[in-house]
Amino acid sequence: MKICRYGAKGSEKPGLIDADGHIRDLSGVVADITGETLSAEGLSRIAAIDPADLPLVEGKPRYGVPVANPGKFIAIGLNYADHAAESNLPIPEEPVVFNKWSNCIQGPNDKVVIPRDSKKTDWEVELGVIIGTRASYIEEADALDHVAGYCVINDVSERHWQQERGPTWDKGKGFPTFGPVGPWLVTADEVGDPQKLSMWLDVNGKRMQDGSSETMIFTVAQIIAYCSQFMTLEPGDIITTGTPPGVGLGQKPDPIYLRPGDVVELGIEKLGQQRQEFLAWSREALA
Amino acid sequence: MKICRYGAKGSEKPGLIDADGHIRDLSGVVADITGETLSAEGLSRIAAIDPADLPLVEGKPRYGVPVANPGKFIAIGLNYADHAAESNLPIPEEPVVFNKWSNCIQGPNDKVVIPRDSKKTDWEVELGVIIGTRASYIEEADALDHVAGYCVINDVSERHWQQERGPTWDKGKGFPTFGPVGPWLVTADEVGDPQKLSMWLDVNGKRMQDGSSETMIFTVAQIIAYCSQFMTLEPGDIITTGTPPGVGLGQKPDPIYLRPGDVVELGIEKLGQQRQEFLAWSREALA
Repeated sequence: MKICRYGAKGSEKPGLIDADGHIRDLSGVVADITGETLSAEGLSRIAAIDPADLPLVEGKPRYGVPVANPGKFIAIGLNYADHAAESNLPIPEEPVVFNKWSNCIQGPNDKVVIPRDSKKTDWEVELGVIIGTRASYIEEADALDHVAGYCVINDVSERHWQQERGPTWDKGKGFPTFGPVGPWLVTADEVGDPQKLSMWLDVNGKRMQDGSSETMIFTVAQIIAYCSQFMTLEPGDIITTGTPPGVGLGQKPDPIYLRPGDVVELGIEKLGQQRQEFLAWSREALA
Repeated sequence: MKICRYGAKGSEKPGLIDADGHIRDLSGVVADITGETLSAEGLSRIAAIDPADLPLVEGKPRYGVPVANPGKFIAIGLNYADHAAESNLPIPEEPVVFNKWSNCIQGPNDKVVIPRDSKKTDWEVELGVIIGTRASYIEEADALDHVAGYCVINDVSERHWQQERGPTWDKGKGFPTFGPVGPWLVTADEVGDPQKLSMWLDVNGKRMQDGSSETMIFTVAQIIAYCSQFMTLEPGDIITTGTPPGVGLGQKPDPIYLRPGDVVELGIEKLGQQRQEFLAWSREALA
């Protein structure tokens, strides 16, 4: 099952993707897609509906973030050995956990703003995990029971701010627009094994990342169990699980960073794809 | 003006503290204290009310966090030179920014849970800033115009998780219950200069921290302007601005950390005080 939120920014409505790939309006069933909607009970209620019985949404509306107002946007760093190597950082002995400020999230195809004076804005295709039930001190064997579904995320990053401006990474990860999420939440039952998903990212039509969740250092289940030792995961929280090699920072002979006008497209097997145009900073662009 | 939220966890009501220090029920005026309530207009509306016209709240109810569901809980590290020294870390050239997971916040006198197997749970009295109006790329000269008010915060920290488990601090700062906030939001007009506030913290009745916001490295205005370059600050967001010397990590000859049964009391001039009992971890304690 594919769940989405569609419509203008700030007034998205809940939707379901039907077998033909069309959006069906879910707003007669739930007011919005929230943490509560993503519980096992909430998802069962939606799964019981025949999409053909829901109104067909005409045209090609914008997609929003598939869950409204996630409380946390948790990120895992250096979770692919080859990416750690290209970042000139050691392979971590335990997951690296950092934060993306939760109001940096936006729809999968919304424009991304390159911050004022930024010279190192970079891309990262990542498998996103959306939590369905509260998780505190859980075991790896139980961890996937807490997942509502998966989605595509571009963990947009400012490398200078992340790596050269202090002992944490948080400055470089949460600039507004740095969190494209979606187009859909694909429920866990439809995805199956989250460690068998190929993923890719193109910049201006050129393939830059081409990987698979198979080569993660820490699996989705390990990450969820691990995070639940340091925080309480709540329904609707999003975890982005690290990126395979091929980011701009790792290009040879010199890093390549994003410039105004660049177009980034990315996708993950079973989860759909995103497309973002990168813009120069302006007050209007951030409004 | 002192604004609070009072009552049982999860069902707090908005309140105003009157001249005698009693809570007056604001729920006939606003449904809750949210980011929206904290705008200049929202605060003016409350300021126009004579507290004597509001119902007196009987008894001694629990205080909750004075703003409901803050989107971000931003923290500044090493913002007092003496504290940087006791932490064996250099004085930062620019603010250190990290994250406390926003669901670690709780009322000022709620019990704090020492995580399972934690040996380095520590205290930090800090001046909290609550944002009243959106701030993106603002100048230092304008920064205090974006403040709704101030509050006391205990930036409870797990030092092993913060310092010895990876390149970010975020593991050690956002365990559930690690964010006591309150008892009140004291509006900016009533506080005046935020750089002239004495603050203290006692553990089991012994004075451990005794400082003043006068000795901050980066002022509140500088911090807000700085953060607004990396993220968009939203109404209701909380920034905790660093701690003066005297944390457990800095004790000589050996660090001192919190144990079950310890009681921490802390306060800031004009902003009230907090009292927390520290508990051993259990599932019930975190429920």
